[in-house]
Amino acid sequence: MSHNSFGHLFRVTTWGESHGPALGCVVDGCPPGIPLEAAEIQQWLDRRKPGQSRFVTQRQEPDTVEILSGVFSDDRTGGQVTTGTPISLMIRNVDQRSKDYGDIRDQYRPGHADYAYDMKYGVRDYRGGGRSSARETAARVAAGAVARKILPGVTIRGALVQIGPHKVDRSRWDWTTVDDNPFFCPDPVTAALWEDYLDGVRKAGSSVGAVIEVVAEGVPAGLGAPVYAKLDQDLASALMSINAVKGVEIGDGFAAATLTGEENADEMRLGPNGEPVFLSNKAGGILGGISTGEPVVARFAVKPTSSILTHRRSISATGTEVDLRTKGRHDPCVGIRAVPVGEAMLAIVLADHLLRHRGQTGRGGPAEYPLHRQG
Amino acid sequence: MSHNSFGHLFRVTTWGESHGPALGCVVDGCPPGIPLEAAEIQQWLDRRKPGQSRFVTQRQEPDTVEILSGVFSDDRTGGQVTTGTPISLMIRNVDQRSKDYGDIRDQYRPGHADYAYDMKYGVRDYRGGGRSSARETAARVAAGAVARKILPGVTIRGALVQIGPHKVDRSRWDWTTVDDNPFFCPDPVTAALWEDYLDGVRKAGSSVGAVIEVVAEGVPAGLGAPVYAKLDQDLASALMSINAVKGVEIGDGFAAATLTGEENADEMRLGPNGEPVFLSNKAGGILGGISTGEPVVARFAVKPTSSILTHRRSISATGTEVDLRTKGRHDPCVGIRAVPVGEAMLAIVLADHLLRHRGQTGRGGPAEYPLHRQG
Amino acid sequence: MSHNSFGHLFRVTTWGESHGPALGCVVDGCPPGIPLEAAEIQQWLDRRKPGQSRFVTQRQEPDTVEILSGVFSDDRTGGQVTTGTPISLMIRNVDQRSKDYGDIRDQYRPGHADYAYDMKYGVRDYRGGGRSSARETAARVAAGAVARKILPGVTIRGALVQIGPHKVDRSRWDWTTVDDNPFFCPDPVTAALWEDYLDGVRKAGSSVGAVIEVVAEGVPAGLGAPVYAKLDQDLASALMSINAVKGVEIGDGFAAATLTGEENADEMRLGPNGEPVFLSNKAGGILGGISTGEPVVARFAVKPTSSILTHRRSISATGTEVDLRTKGRHDPCVGIRAVPVGEAMLAIVLADHLLRHRGQTGRGGPAEYPLHRQG
Amino acid sequence: MSHNSFGHLFRVTTWGESHGPALGCVVDGCPPGIPLEAAEIQQWLDRRKPGQSRFVTQRQEPDTVEILSGVFSDDRTGGQVTTGTPISLMIRNVDQRSKDYGDIRDQYRPGHADYAYDMKYGVRDYRGGGRSSARETAARVAAGAVARKILPGVTIRGALVQIGPHKVDRSRWDWTTVDDNPFFCPDPVTAALWEDYLDGVRKAGSSVGAVIEVVAEGVPAGLGAPVYAKLDQDLASALMSINAVKGVEIGDGFAAATLTGEENADEMRLGPNGEPVFLSNKAGGILGGISTGEPVVARFAVKPTSSILTHRRSISATGTEVDLRTKGRHDPCVGIRAVPVGEAMLAIVLADHLLRHRGQTGRGGPAEYPLHRQG
Repeated sequence: MSHNSFGHLFRVTTWGESHGPALGCVVDGCPPGIPLEAAEIQQWLDRRKPGQSRFVTQRQEPDTVEILSGVFSDDRTGGQVTTGTPISLMIRNVDQRSKDYGDIRDQYRPGHADYAYDMKYGVRDYRGGGRSSARETAARVAAGAVARKILPGVTIRGALVQIGPHKVDRSRWDWTTVDDNPFFCPDPVTAALWEDYLDGVRKAGSSVGAVIEVVAEGVPAGLGAPVYAKLDQDLASALMSINAVKGVEIGDGFAAATLTGEENADEMRLGPNGEPVFLSNKAGGILGGISTGEPVVARFAVKPTSSILTHRRSISATGTEVDLRTKGRHDPCVGIRAVPVGEAMLAIVLADHLLRHRGQTGRGGPAEYPLHRQG
Repeated sequence: MSHNSFGHLFRVTTWGESHGPALGCVVDGCPPGIPLEAAEIQQWLDRRKPGQSRFVTQRQEPDTVEILSGVFSDDRTGGQVTTGTPISLMIRNVDQRSKDYGDIRDQYRPGHADYAYDMKYGVRDYRGGGRSSARETAARVAAGAVARKILPGVTIRGALVQIGPHKVDRSRWDWTTVDDNPFFCPDPVTAALWEDYLDGVRKAGSSVGAVIEVVAEGVPAGLGAPVYAKLDQDLASALMSINAVKGVEIGDGFAAATLTGEENADEMRLGPNGEPVFLSNKAGGILGGISTGEPVVARFAVKPTSSILTHRRSISATGTEVDLRTKGRHDPCVGIRAVPVGEAMLAIVLADHLLRHRGQTGRGGPAEYPLHRQG
Repeated sequence: MSHNSFGHLFRVTTWGESHGPALGCVVDGCPPGIPLEAAEIQQWLDRRKPGQSRFVTQRQEPDTVEILSGVFSDDRTGGQVTTGTPISLMIRNVDQRSKDYGDIRDQYRPGHADYAYDMKYGVRDYRGGGRSSARETAARVAAGAVARKILPGVTIRGALVQIGPHKVDRSRWDWTTVDDNPFFCPDPVTAALWEDYLDGVRKAGSSVGAVIEVVAEGVPAGLGAPVYAKLDQDLASALMSINAVKGVEIGDGFAAATLTGEENADEMRLGPNGEPVFLSNKAGGILGGISTGEPVVARFAVKPTSSILTHRRSISATGTEVDLRTKGRHDPCVGIRAVPVGEAMLAIVLADHLLRHRGQTGRGGPAEYPLHRQG
Repeated sequence: MSHNSFGHLFRVTTWGESHGPALGCVVDGCPPGIPLEAAEIQQWLDRRKPGQSRFVTQRQEPDTVEILSGVFSDDRTGGQVTTGTPISLMIRNVDQRSKDYGDIRDQYRPGHADYAYDMKYGVRDYRGGGRSSARETAARVAAGAVARKILPGVTIRGALVQIGPHKVDRSRWDWTTVDDNPFFCPDPVTAALWEDYLDGVRKAGSSVGAVIEVVAEGVPAGLGAPVYAKLDQDLASALMSINAVKGVEIGDGFAAATLTGEENADEMRLGPNGEPVFLSNKAGGILGGISTGEPVVARFAVKPTSSILTHRRSISATGTEVDLRTKGRHDPCVGIRAVPVGEAMLAIVLADHLLRHRGQTGRGGPAEYPLHRQG
């Protein structure tokens, strides 16, 4: 058990505060012999990096990752590979402006963890949220990059599907456009609408919530277990552990409550080569806690950033009533940068379950489980 | 790590199949000296017991619990108390009709775990769903009854808030009516409507999904931790681990995505005795993964029972296409009996986090954390 | 984490007290499709069963095991196999004479856990030692029987190598004689000597300590891990967790402290078929925490039974000085029945590490690792 | 579960290879509000540091620790304290001479982990032993320094009690002399003898084994648990996880096998103030897996360094027979520097169990458990 680790056979332990010298993670249990270069991790970190548009925090952090252990480059074989020992990854904090936070060291910002922290620990690193800062998610993205390396044949992607009241039009969904806009939006028309909408939110010093969808294709059937190691259970745990997340759903999710058994059942037929074929995927690729070979689909809701420029009523640690607003640099919609974080957590869950499945059953990899969905 | 255990310091391991001789659980880590009688566990099991109305499975199971270990009755002190050693609870299966399931031993019922099981294990106890049967949840309710005993001052309740498209009217919410109808519905008017609606579903041999809300009042502030031991994360894990659950949300949940930062922030003021008072509870009692002292509020969505009388298209394990319908005794709405199960999982999460919090910080019990919400 | 579980991927949770209705265990993570009958477990329990000679406790317990879950017998395929779900094993307690223990419910028996229990829990099931009774080890033997089933090609054996000051003569070691005497002694000459010696101890109402050696042959190379999942570390943990054990050593163990580097190094050569061959096995089959393919060899020391007929000085829970002696039925040498328990723990450790190794590396079973030692 | 973590509530994860850029650990679960400065950790690292005498490796490493997270210095309160979030500690490697190891990248050094590593991982960082280097123990000492901080009133000390065949004379035991010689020897006469003896070993290019004793005084009664969380079990696990350790014993250890029940029982009496008093401590402070309040005493045996200058027979990864000797800088007796490592592991085990005990029982700290031993 651990308060700062996630996963079992593929296990990630993160550390670091917003305004400390660095943050990072230890990835334990990675299989040996996997090619791994820092640049492969960096590419995913660059997607999450702050300051890339006016819609995210203006904190300037290069988020350069260093691999401190767990890899080895043998000049006979060429590239660097994992050794099976713990991979320590470190990212230096560069742009810490601690002075921004001095005012609120005694005041509990509404919607923030300040009050809860003091109730728990009696002491609090108030600079930038300390441990509860979204900077911790950089370590998740780095770990997720390692997880992707042990999931050959699995494609993990994410998209923002709702900002405030505005949802994407699924009939226009195009994965290839996700990186063409600052929102990871799969629908260019909606992306344009969001741009206007979020500019308004931003200029008002306000913020707004969002919904993210993450999808893994090529997941072999058989990952997960029936009761307390359900694949969807661990995915719910993974996604709910991301800052500001208030809801998680798999497949049809809450909409499944309104369906009848006839509507909800994903029927099956044989494909052209006699292979099993599902005719729909309302289950989101998971039945009885175990993957079916269909795409694993999950969505999670992110609340609006609590740091806003409007005064809100609160209290201080010394027992007075205060009205406060949060200065500093913040995201008008933290949901945007949650997209690569959600992808990373999905990758980590799948990597862990792939190893667990292999451990218990001896069955191994993606190649064993061909399955295609019709239409 | 374990595929069939939940929790850390308060740890529950369940075992048993639908059609085996018995099912049960081992509750490890319970504090010593807690009064505990079998009757106290039985009262919660009786709420979940099948066969109590025409809207749930007609399987007849008394679900009588036996305490096999972990308690001791000293004639000097009177009643039976926990000793701090593992509490083994067993429930005999009585009404197993295995013949009902013979037909489908080679056929993958759509919406069921059959196919996924075979992909994972290559072997499957096809009688009544085996390990993935809802009977496993009896063990959860039994363990939850123990968890409640170490949460003095905490009130844990649940209610069904939606069946199919029909939601309760929150303006009529009355906890005292929850046990007056066969649905755990907190709104008598909606309960009457559901009765008609579900009769139709039942007679059609169909099924429908539902949404359950669980609430814990009196939870001390400080339970949980900022990153991978978030109280809401473990609650999401707990609720998503229940059979047929497809979505979980905390506080405002998915609706938080549509809010602005101003609307979402739960403001604070001082109460009449100078105590902290939250003016709203959109956060559902958890900020930054840590309880605030406000009621902990969660909802989860349950898909419709996959066992229905209408033929659905599927395939067999031997590679043929089949049309099948599921005979046997089933719930038209499994969401109903999920209410006591959701309560139990909430109790288990809170008990575990209470012990974990006490372990790390030395801070102890409910008495330390007075907090009242205004209005 | 758990106070009553052992292992990770192959995980055993035991429960039950000496004088409760039953004891048992849940074996979680067992691979699916393994043939498993109750009789296969029973044969190992029968070796540990009390009352089989005058040198062990006269408590009469048939120790009949019931498999309550986790197996399935499909009439098409014949025998019963594991399903990959938790295997619940239960053993009823039959011969509980609680009246024997009434006298000492307030008195701390020297050498027993009574005082420590009260300091920890403040409550204690004083009947027969409660949870600290050696009866708990029946559950270990049952779980070990399951572990053996997933270690094909691995031979696990144990022997008593020392009682009091009397050691076996290793030049006469003959595994085939171990079951020919009541001591699991591999040397018939020493067995005869022990018989006289222990009769003296028994008649004096005294007790004596012992040393047990357990050996696993056919263990594939590669089990374990370099730092905190060392095979020898987990073996030390497993053996030290057995009641009354005070020391554990691997290979040459404490004697290695007296060796030079030249003497200690197990040299290697190629065998007739070019295979790796170790010329000695001072390491006990483990180097750097990882198995080498050589026999895994461990020894553990068991203290004398603390229940003796001679009066010893102690105190009571109420703060008085007392002189007490322990009536009831006890083993003059608990080390004897520790032999099958040690074997079981060795099997559990190996099974767990086989699955962990397979999970991380994808490398599988014994067949992959041929290795023979010379001479 | 984790291959590179130790402990549960107080949990240490180490990372780093001998010849990587750095090594370190993450200490998770530390209570909040504990004063902690880098200098307090450094003092313990300095005791373990290589190059301090001619009897240990001549590698020159300052082993300077950096605290990267988990502490906070509030200018209002003065010093730096823990925040309850993960404490990341890093030590840079400075003196890496990789060229020393190039020769043996394909050759399996007898007594080393080389062969076992290749069998497990198929890839190996052969420089300086990679992950199996004794440098990993620096991270343990750093983590142990943090553990000591949450054990006020507990004194943890270690000493070398045997080198090769030469044991200390316990009648001359004087803790105050342990730091007066390069061996952590508590007996100045024996220390002088060892100096001559080890000079001979060193000059011969040989090595020799050793035995270390660690003792914790002031440990409250009640730490540990009866079955699989025995304090002695976790201590055995902790000590056996140290490189080169081949045996562990508690209290009288293997000598207990030769005792009778009368000799072994630690009798009790009441002290001058009516407090419980043990008349001996053969149990080493632990009964039934739970601490008694007596000093916790453990010993562990370390095999001789496998790196020696004499040629030994071995094989290569490419299947040839080779004769090899290990160049480079090595310890003639690795047991010496194992003393501070053993102390650290003892501190970590006690800290973890203190938090676990507090979590389950609500009982807290050393102050609650006064106990003094007579004479």
